Amino acid sequence: MAVYTQVSAEALGDFLARYDVGELVSAKGIAEGVENSNYLVETTQDRFILTLYERRVNADELPYFMALLDHLAAKGLSVPPAIKDRNGVAIQRLEGRPACLIKFLRGVSVSHPTPAQALVAGGALGQMHRAVEDFALDRPNSMGAQTWQALFEQCGRDLDRIHPDLYDRVEEALDQVLARWPTDLPTGAIHADLFPDNILMLGDQVTGLIDFYFACTDLRAYDLAVMHGAWAFDSTGTDFFPATGHGIVSGYRDAFELSEAELAALPVLAQGASLRFLLSRAWDWLNTPADALVTRKDPLAYLRRYDFYRTFDPATTLQGVNADPFLA
Amino acid sequence: MAVYTQVSAEALGDFLARYDVGELVSAKGIAEGVENSNYLVETTQDRFILTLYERRVNADELPYFMALLDHLAAKGLSVPPAIKDRNGVAIQRLEGRPACLIKFLRGVSVSHPTPAQALVAGGALGQMHRAVEDFALDRPNSMGAQTWQALFEQCGRDLDRIHPDLYDRVEEALDQVLARWPTDLPTGAIHADLFPDNILMLGDQVTGLIDFYFACTDLRAYDLAVMHGAWAFDSTGTDFFPATGHGIVSGYRDAFELSEAELAALPVLAQGASLRFLLSRAWDWLNTPADALVTRKDPLAYLRRYDFYRTFDPATTLQGVNADPFLA
Repeated sequence: MAVYTQVSAEALGDFLARYDVGELVSAKGIAEGVENSNYLVETTQDRFILTLYERRVNADELPYFMALLDHLAAKGLSVPPAIKDRNGVAIQRLEGRPACLIKFLRGVSVSHPTPAQALVAGGALGQMHRAVEDFALDRPNSMGAQTWQALFEQCGRDLDRIHPDLYDRVEEALDQVLARWPTDLPTGAIHADLFPDNILMLGDQVTGLIDFYFACTDLRAYDLAVMHGAWAFDSTGTDFFPATGHGIVSGYRDAFELSEAELAALPVLAQGASLRFLLSRAWDWLNTPADALVTRKDPLAYLRRYDFYRTFDPATTLQGVNADPFLA
Repeated sequence: MAVYTQVSAEALGDFLARYDVGELVSAKGIAEGVENSNYLVETTQDRFILTLYERRVNADELPYFMALLDHLAAKGLSVPPAIKDRNGVAIQRLEGRPACLIKFLRGVSVSHPTPAQALVAGGALGQMHRAVEDFALDRPNSMGAQTWQALFEQCGRDLDRIHPDLYDRVEEALDQVLARWPTDLPTGAIHADLFPDNILMLGDQVTGLIDFYFACTDLRAYDLAVMHGAWAFDSTGTDFFPATGHGIVSGYRDAFELSEAELAALPVLAQGASLRFLLSRAWDWLNTPADALVTRKDPLAYLRRYDFYRTFDPATTLQGVNADPFLA
């Protein structure tokens, strides 16, 4: 969430000369995305995002992300593909880092999504899943269910420094969730991190899906569960907003498809998604100095979500789609 | 150099509705300026910078800065005045902070100014000094010569943690510089911080002077001395670039005026400017945790400049303008 690598105006001018994008007019370091350096660049022709990839993105995986974005853009989805230079090259090097010049998308990320915005956002996820049905590449989910136990063990008893008994709570939760983790649901390329931050909107219209650097091959309904937990609660995980949650799930189902089996699995998938963000936040919490100039995100906001998703009565999911708490 | 105060899209949309600037299209937190929070905001009509003023800018002083920017803009200088809302109000509150919506200026800050760029940059400072000859407001220089002794004493012997003997070196330097500090040179509103960061350029044209939050009433030639030290050296203060330094001074003189007395005082003014930045950097260094995510700027880069400016032979300044080392 900062600019880690400084790019001089002179180096940026030289970089842009590789492309057919006009001359440099303005460049501002921007504070967004995962741990990359980003600039909003204006040329005489257009605006772009310049991304320099820092440690969290493995350069070897950039071709997967860029192929996915190209695929989605070719299907008409509003995603930001990398611009190709005069030689057709999208992934460059700049200031010693892998770097891409990326299409700029209009829109803002809402902080308090309305049910109407949740409906179109869920629809956008459904459109994405439909669009990748013929996408050929695979990438394992580096933060998927099979990784949580190891991350839990890396955090270890330090978890209790965040909250007493957190270690025991997570140990038990992982046992329960992983024992019931579904294996026979449809898979595909998923976004895996579609928080409100990562959807650009203007009013009630989606103008862009961004930040695909956790995209991978995994259960499609898991993507929906991640989104449900990210959109339908206040930031502390205390208050659940049923109409917003309903918008996410019904928007998705209307735009694509959601089987009875996927719907029935949403509670355990949402419990798992809660543990995934609990664990990554806990790891960051334990490894970020308290006085660093980054905001540590509270892991307990996801323990609260986990507890919420445990109280779903599985029986209600058997009464048909319209009685499902996710669609209530 | 970060976004300290988050502004939600919803709050920003409400804020923009006070103005006649169109609807919100995009907003990105940007990493620039002194310790304020800045957003690059695009509307259906134009682009703007939204600044929320954090602790380093005293809200009581904003009217001075805004009056100065309005004055300069009215004279045709490319500076970023604050936009007034439908009620004529420029200084607002947003998320509990004083806030202004500011004109966006094209251009980029060069990292390695050429002599041609230094010439037009010096000229821009001269134009600014000419334009404020009839500016009526005053503001004391909160980082002026009269403040250095106190800042030195606040740093105290901790200076030696930065470099052995730094305390003694600065004590002696301050004695020498303050004893010779000129009092009879022309004064006016000065920028006081016109580093390359704070001039926007496109090629060899100046497109904007920005970041006036150190502006104050002080010796005009001191402003030129600050700029000389900021532009004519590499960032470590080791290498001096004579043609760049010449460009700053001759560009200024061509655009405005520079008396024999001001020219003769440039060495001591430049020594003083070096001590001013040495001391503020040393204070920040001693008060910034080593692991904080901000880059600490090396105070010694300004001790090197101070030493450089001591070796000017004062005699050469008596031989006329063209033999002056500042114009060599």
